[in-house]
Amino acid sequence: MSRPIVICCAITGSRPRKADNPAVPVSPAEQIESAHEAFEAGATVLHLHVRDEHERPCFLPERFAVVMEGVYEHCPGMIIELSTGGVAGSPADRAASLPLRPDMAAIALGSVNFPNGVYHNPPDVIDELARTCADLHIKPCIEVFDLSMIYTARAMCDQGLLREPLHFHIVLGGQGALPARRQVLDFIVAEIHNLFPDSTWMASGLGRHQDIVMDWALYLGGHIRT
Amino acid sequence: MSRPIVICCAITGSRPRKADNPAVPVSPAEQIESAHEAFEAGATVLHLHVRDEHERPCFLPERFAVVMEGVYEHCPGMIIELSTGGVAGSPADRAASLPLRPDMAAIALGSVNFPNGVYHNPPDVIDELARTCADLHIKPCIEVFDLSMIYTARAMCDQGLLREPLHFHIVLGGQGALPARRQVLDFIVAEIHNLFPDSTWMASGLGRHQDIVMDWALYLGGHIRT
Ligand SMILES: [Zn+2]
Ligand SMILES: [Zn+2]
Ligand SMILES: [Zn+2]
Ligand SMILES: [Zn+2]
Repeated sequence: MSRPIVICCAITGSRPRKADNPAVPVSPAEQIESAHEAFEAGATVLHLHVRDEHERPCFLPERFAVVMEGVYEHCPGMIIELSTGGVAGSPADRAASLPLRPDMAAIALGSVNFPNGVYHNPPDVIDELARTCADLHIKPCIEVFDLSMIYTARAMCDQGLLREPLHFHIVLGGQGALPARRQVLDFIVAEIHNLFPDSTWMASGLGRHQDIVMDWALYLGGHIRT
Repeated sequence: MSRPIVICCAITGSRPRKADNPAVPVSPAEQIESAHEAFEAGATVLHLHVRDEHERPCFLPERFAVVMEGVYEHCPGMIIELSTGGVAGSPADRAASLPLRPDMAAIALGSVNFPNGVYHNPPDVIDELARTCADLHIKPCIEVFDLSMIYTARAMCDQGLLREPLHFHIVLGGQGALPARRQVLDFIVAEIHNLFPDSTWMASGLGRHQDIVMDWALYLGGHIRT
């Protein structure tokens, strides 16, 4: 028996620059080309962070818009998910591209430590991002960087701020956040099944943890992000 | 068969004022009296937050010092654990009373959402609090507000920033943080046993969750905080 797997590809992460890895696509033309390669290789969802002209992470709607337009043209049917986090940005900046009405938007439902500081997602910011997604009919991807975030998702569904079925992205392997540990993924997946019976999920491992987490996710019935 | 249970009493929480509950001890005299009552009722550890003259949460060493002196005098043998968090405070403020050399100091090993904002414990602040505790021979109490914090504890032991055996305090029932859910406590306790075989732990439930979490902790072999 086989099951269809959704592959979500993050062509450009939240941080790397050309100096870190010359293959990282940073210009819109490079990003469109990279999305196209991922699409031809089988990825059906594009997770998108953009850069300004100095390769700095940014939330400029013009940048998102030009990449979205190119991807819709070259990759018919590909689902585009915009990042609303990953770098320091004001709440208004982080939501600034949602009016472009991407198919999906990634929202981290809480705060957690990253190696260099706090990934700051206070309750009022999360609630407002969820409200904006609902108003614009954008499907949220719930980014899970720590266990509490799935219970916050439950509370937000109960309050009408999120609508089921949800899609979760479980992120493992971040220092200060959830480790790439099989017991952790097993427990979170079991809790998601308990609390959100009709939801879907995918998992990814940061850096060197990518391959093992992908294996676990496939084994456990999840989808994957590369 | 019976086992000895350690009861840690937080006589004054991080936030409440007389207006919230007239029984909350806020002056040093009230705090010493309250500690004494807890001691006579069987509590052997005092978890201490202090207030300034306007009942505002503070980290003033003079305040900690006068309560500590009264408690050592009236409650011989009671262990005193100082808070280093719970309210907004600069890293220097939060560590300012450690030179008083309390027996223990509570350190939250990561950041998490509280109902009104982010409980901000960035990696450099945590590392510095742990270093100060080690230098002054203060035993840390590892406050666990989200799952990741136990893996951060493991990493800090491996780096020599913390020394085993550790003592954990698992806090359940906070909105935005870990819920008062039996599966959550079971999993965290199992992971603590796996990763820190000779550690000890206690659990508490915030507000209305206090009784049920205490029951679970006693059943699972932990200690309790009231
Ligand atoms: Zn991202
Ligand atoms: Zn996503
Ligand atoms: Zn406290
Ligand atoms: Zn404690």
